[in-house]
Amino acid sequence: MNAYNQLLAHSKKISHFQHLASITGWDQAAVMPSGGASARSEAMAELSLHIHQLSTQPQLGEWFSEAETEELDNTQQAIVREMKQEWLDATLLPDDLVAAKSLAGSRCEHAWREQRPNNDWSGFAKNWQEVVKLSQEEAQIRAEHFQCTPYDAMLSQFEPGTTSASLDVVFADVKSWLPDMIDQAIAKQSGETIIQPNGHYPTHIQKSIGLDVMNLLQFDFNHGRLDESVHPFCGGVPSDVRITTRYDENEFVQAIMGIVHETGHARYEQGLPRSLAGLRAGHARSMGIHESQSLFFEMQLGRNPHFIQHLARLSTGRFDSQQPNLFTVDNLQKLYTRVKKDFIRVDADELTYPAHIILRYEIERDLMNGDITVSDVPELWNEKMQQYLGLSTRGNDRLGCMQDIHWTDGAFGYFPSYTLGAMYAAQFMATMRQSIDIEGVLDSGDFSPIFTWLADNVWQKGSLYTTNELITQATGETLNPQYFKRHLEQRYL
Amino acid sequence: MNAYNQLLAHSKKISHFQHLASITGWDQAAVMPSGGASARSEAMAELSLHIHQLSTQPQLGEWFSEAETEELDNTQQAIVREMKQEWLDATLLPDDLVAAKSLAGSRCEHAWREQRPNNDWSGFAKNWQEVVKLSQEEAQIRAEHFQCTPYDAMLSQFEPGTTSASLDVVFADVKSWLPDMIDQAIAKQSGETIIQPNGHYPTHIQKSIGLDVMNLLQFDFNHGRLDESVHPFCGGVPSDVRITTRYDENEFVQAIMGIVHETGHARYEQGLPRSLAGLRAGHARSMGIHESQSLFFEMQLGRNPHFIQHLARLSTGRFDSQQPNLFTVDNLQKLYTRVKKDFIRVDADELTYPAHIILRYEIERDLMNGDITVSDVPELWNEKMQQYLGLSTRGNDRLGCMQDIHWTDGAFGYFPSYTLGAMYAAQFMATMRQSIDIEGVLDSGDFSPIFTWLADNVWQKGSLYTTNELITQATGETLNPQYFKRHLEQRYL
Repeated sequence: MNAYNQLLAHSKKISHFQHLASITGWDQAAVMPSGGASARSEAMAELSLHIHQLSTQPQLGEWFSEAETEELDNTQQAIVREMKQEWLDATLLPDDLVAAKSLAGSRCEHAWREQRPNNDWSGFAKNWQEVVKLSQEEAQIRAEHFQCTPYDAMLSQFEPGTTSASLDVVFADVKSWLPDMIDQAIAKQSGETIIQPNGHYPTHIQKSIGLDVMNLLQFDFNHGRLDESVHPFCGGVPSDVRITTRYDENEFVQAIMGIVHETGHARYEQGLPRSLAGLRAGHARSMGIHESQSLFFEMQLGRNPHFIQHLARLSTGRFDSQQPNLFTVDNLQKLYTRVKKDFIRVDADELTYPAHIILRYEIERDLMNGDITVSDVPELWNEKMQQYLGLSTRGNDRLGCMQDIHWTDGAFGYFPSYTLGAMYAAQFMATMRQSIDIEGVLDSGDFSPIFTWLADNVWQKGSLYTTNELITQATGETLNPQYFKRHLEQRYL
Repeated sequence: MNAYNQLLAHSKKISHFQHLASITGWDQAAVMPSGGASARSEAMAELSLHIHQLSTQPQLGEWFSEAETEELDNTQQAIVREMKQEWLDATLLPDDLVAAKSLAGSRCEHAWREQRPNNDWSGFAKNWQEVVKLSQEEAQIRAEHFQCTPYDAMLSQFEPGTTSASLDVVFADVKSWLPDMIDQAIAKQSGETIIQPNGHYPTHIQKSIGLDVMNLLQFDFNHGRLDESVHPFCGGVPSDVRITTRYDENEFVQAIMGIVHETGHARYEQGLPRSLAGLRAGHARSMGIHESQSLFFEMQLGRNPHFIQHLARLSTGRFDSQQPNLFTVDNLQKLYTRVKKDFIRVDADELTYPAHIILRYEIERDLMNGDITVSDVPELWNEKMQQYLGLSTRGNDRLGCMQDIHWTDGAFGYFPSYTLGAMYAAQFMATMRQSIDIEGVLDSGDFSPIFTWLADNVWQKGSLYTTNELITQATGETLNPQYFKRHLEQRYL
């Protein structure tokens, strides 16, 4: 067997263990009784260790060197490139740093679950200092290897090929118009009347509507499921994609739109190239591209009134509602596009969301690059929050810099993916409109032309191309925030 | 680290991977969409291979030799004994025989799913011949190592310590009184009136009653779940025991008693010693002892009228039934103890069940020992069926020797466990009655004294003792079929 084929076989072997990790991870979040947690953690830690050992096996270095001398076509070269990137990610860090960071992250997260509601910044900072320090060490090692800034080295784990130099430009553009646009949208909406749901919306009915919506979105139930979990997610494996949602019986809008969002992630996974199953090149391109698909479903399709008419149709008459105009297209549309300046990112609307992200990006970038320290974070957060959304978080870190799990766990570099996703989604839609009558397709109830476009231009490409190549092939240019701006203007102004 | 501790650490490592196999196996049977099957099979095959490699690692032989020279207490000796037995089971057979048998079994089972309904014995025999041949090779290798007959070598995988010499005696006793007892019971029941359920019994109501029954049986929902699957089973791991059932909306008796049965398996698993978690010595003692617990729940408790009063209470008024006396204790008791001579083992009642088992035992024993051949099986089956139950299967192998999956897959030596379990259960109950007022406890609704006895005498012992030691410690004697006989006499005559 030549080195390339050795690499293929080894990669497929690893993917089998990753399959087990995905399914038992889903199980843990969606169905495992709490008493099973301890034994499960041990089993999953053993599995992680095994996957790490396979991923860092000494022969791999030789196989990569040899494979680079073998005659490979473009696809094979991409397969090796992605595999090598993953191998470098796995081997660059000393095992004791990985273990120490994982431990510090778990400890910090565990304590944070109590510290956050208690607004205990000083208690949190003590643990978090260690997470930041170890993350900086990690960033430094990665930066030396890849010859980039520490922050860019962290960012590239989630968004390979994206740099803070490019993000600075894109986000500066967004910052130049977003605060004004938010104010204008709020002013415009202030005169509107919205009917807020005030009834009882049983879980089983919400779930039944959710399943109808998934069918409308052509989710493949032969290769996936819908379940419940505290934190909604999309997990499983491409042949068996598991999405979850949570239900609040006091309202129905969140669960159903949450399902639309996760279905976007799921269809990307279900649409990945089967021919590359078990290879990194057959995975989703990046977190930002993944988010572009969920946000395409949630924002570009889900909040279009021609889509909302289906939600209205599927929801009307299903609940014992005493509010006659609650489920009209107009009212649902208003519920789904209400703009509000508020503290919490995960509850933010489409328009204010980028402000939350840019704020985090700027702080985590400076933190990883050593330009600021942990103790600077609360006040910086407060300043930026005032600047972007006019809200103060001084002395209220529970609603400020302590609100997210990402930093707690040391996932620095992840946040930009959310807004990159929103921008890619808008750019995809703008291109799609050149060849597809989106509203006509939505009205028809058969969304196939839209999904065919996404399959051809995104899903079926896996990671065979870099993000920039993928975006350029699909839309004719690299990331351009003007599409996002125009989309928001059209919806909110 | 001394050899004993090396063995401990290695065993716990293996158990972590077995945990993953159990959970993904449950997932496959209970929740996986069918399109996930192919990738799941590959992942689970990789996991099996990995577990096999860990279980047969070359150092193990040295560690066992060394551990035998180390100073170990009784518990430690039992831990090593059980671990070594498992290691021998894993290493005795050449890998190519294991692979060939697994392949032949899969092929035979796959074809059997169509051959059985078509009554295609000659088609089946062609595949099955190979399964039998490879099983005989396996039996031969095991027999040479353990110095016993080929059949005993197969039997000992499921019932370590039990021999066909002892089974011959026990089953000869049963055969001497069972056919008469069946005839007498049928004659006695012939005059009775039974109300058969003829309504619609929705799954969600059956499930809700099932959960109530599990609570009554003190199933620990913090360490387990109830789900659905085509073939009910008890899976998962001791800290997270997953039982399943299937619902038929045309009746309710089977699902609910199926839940009682699986809850017996589950409470054994939940009650295994936590201190031996991850060690073979902390597993259930044998298939027969496992079945003794499910049958204790199903037959000794579940069909006692003082238990059935709870089923009546929990079921009455739950369904839209037009049959006023359907849920009386008397009628439920009759439904659950109806005796009928019939062809199919899995549908057999408590009294005729042993006849089905003894028939299979006699045939598989002679087949493994080379005293008969595959082509003898249909006629032998027919003869024994006539002798024990007065039914002919000549030319009707679909209701005869082709009915079970066990032989199809090459699991020779498994069948005796069912009737051993029924006999152990009766013997446990007879002993328990000496110190516990069973009917009084059942009437009270708090069955704790019964479960405490089982926990002390069975569950908490794991595999620290041989089956004979366990039975003797619990009941003062080794297996004695008279307790089973008396139990059946009291219930059916």
